[in-house]
Amino acid sequence: MFANNEIGTIQPVAQIAQLAKEKQIIFHTDGVQAVSNLEIDVKKIGIDAMSISGHKFHAPKGIGALYLKNGLAIENLLHGGSQERELRAGTENVAAIVAMAKALELAYQNLAERTQKMKTLRDRTIKEISDNFQGAKLNGHSNRRLPGNVNFSFPKVEGDVLLMQLDMKGISASSGSACSSLSIEPSHVLLALGLDKAMAKGSLRITFGDENTSADLDYLLATLKEVLPK
Amino acid sequence: MFANNEIGTIQPVAQIAQLAKEKQIIFHTDGVQAVSNLEIDVKKIGIDAMSISGHKFHAPKGIGALYLKNGLAIENLLHGGSQERELRAGTENVAAIVAMAKALELAYQNLAERTQKMKTLRDRTIKEISDNFQGAKLNGHSNRRLPGNVNFSFPKVEGDVLLMQLDMKGISASSGSACSSLSIEPSHVLLALGLDKAMAKGSLRITFGDENTSADLDYLLATLKEVLPK
Repeated sequence: MFANNEIGTIQPVAQIAQLAKEKQIIFHTDGVQAVSNLEIDVKKIGIDAMSISGHKFHAPKGIGALYLKNGLAIENLLHGGSQERELRAGTENVAAIVAMAKALELAYQNLAERTQKMKTLRDRTIKEISDNFQGAKLNGHSNRRLPGNVNFSFPKVEGDVLLMQLDMKGISASSGSACSSLSIEPSHVLLALGLDKAMAKGSLRITFGDENTSADLDYLLATLKEVLPK
Repeated sequence: MFANNEIGTIQPVAQIAQLAKEKQIIFHTDGVQAVSNLEIDVKKIGIDAMSISGHKFHAPKGIGALYLKNGLAIENLLHGGSQERELRAGTENVAAIVAMAKALELAYQNLAERTQKMKTLRDRTIKEISDNFQGAKLNGHSNRRLPGNVNFSFPKVEGDVLLMQLDMKGISASSGSACSSLSIEPSHVLLALGLDKAMAKGSLRITFGDENTSADLDYLLATLKEVLPK
């Protein structure tokens, strides 16, 4: 993936693309988290194929796109009708396609300003949690990470319980990936980073959007002080 | 398929299901055209799996469903997240799912009345076209067909040209399947029925919805008289 969905780490995609090119391997990257948050020049980076998902940048759910370099031939997964140049059968959701294009356009109109606002919230959150909660451990890179992503592990905390406590206070956060939100297994990403099971289960993922304010952050921090063990 | 998308013919699905059951073959049917137009008791008919598509019954585009008999195990096509009991990865479009359920409920609230209205339009169209256009041939069964479906072939007519003429008069119709609307090949369904290429290319598919009125039909017939060769 271009940037990790749980810990926000931005991967050295250009170097990976270069390696793949040298070995004549087609390079696909999961750009779902990165698009709308980072400048991405697919040609310059050397990306052959990239998946994106509209609901990550305020388009409706249920729409995404696959970028394919001109001339790149792939096999289709869904057979049937000849829609999408015979690559994806099924009646197109035209309204959602148009909405996604517009949302993408809007996201990149003021990328620097918008992401700087998110980074400011992110960095203050990282500092305040590190300063105020003993044993709290930041997961992922300190600054090579998505502008809105914060991921901490807390000792002696059950992530699930923490999420419920935050939810009751009106704060939506997650523990690991939404794809596995029904699973009680610790995050495979955090285990791969070398965390033990307890710390991996005590993780909290906070994601800021461009509509969040510093007042939201104040409320989040005050709530964490209430619900986390001293 | 439960009912054919081009010519509207309703297949003897219960008999097919029975044959499949005798041979211990899992029976899937494409119910896209049938759902909302016919009464379907999957258990009584013996259907193991059935696909439906929301936009056929006034739900938004981009949403569909796969009915699976309890306990039927299938392999997943899309891998990744564990959504939909690990059968279909990807963030669910909740709003569209809810809309589809509601649309289905509404469609079946007054099925008999709604489809009777469509059948009346259908049967009058079939009669008037047969009476007024020499050589016009009805494709598909005369009454074992979807309540809103009419499909005729006309000699010495190019379906594409006819569609454009109707479109200019504000009438949306099709020639064959929308899945192959960019193709200039004649419909494989009509060829399989034994039509020659010329007649298969001279086909017109008219579909009535429950919002169509007899005034719409009058306008369609008057327009056909204008644009079709004498």
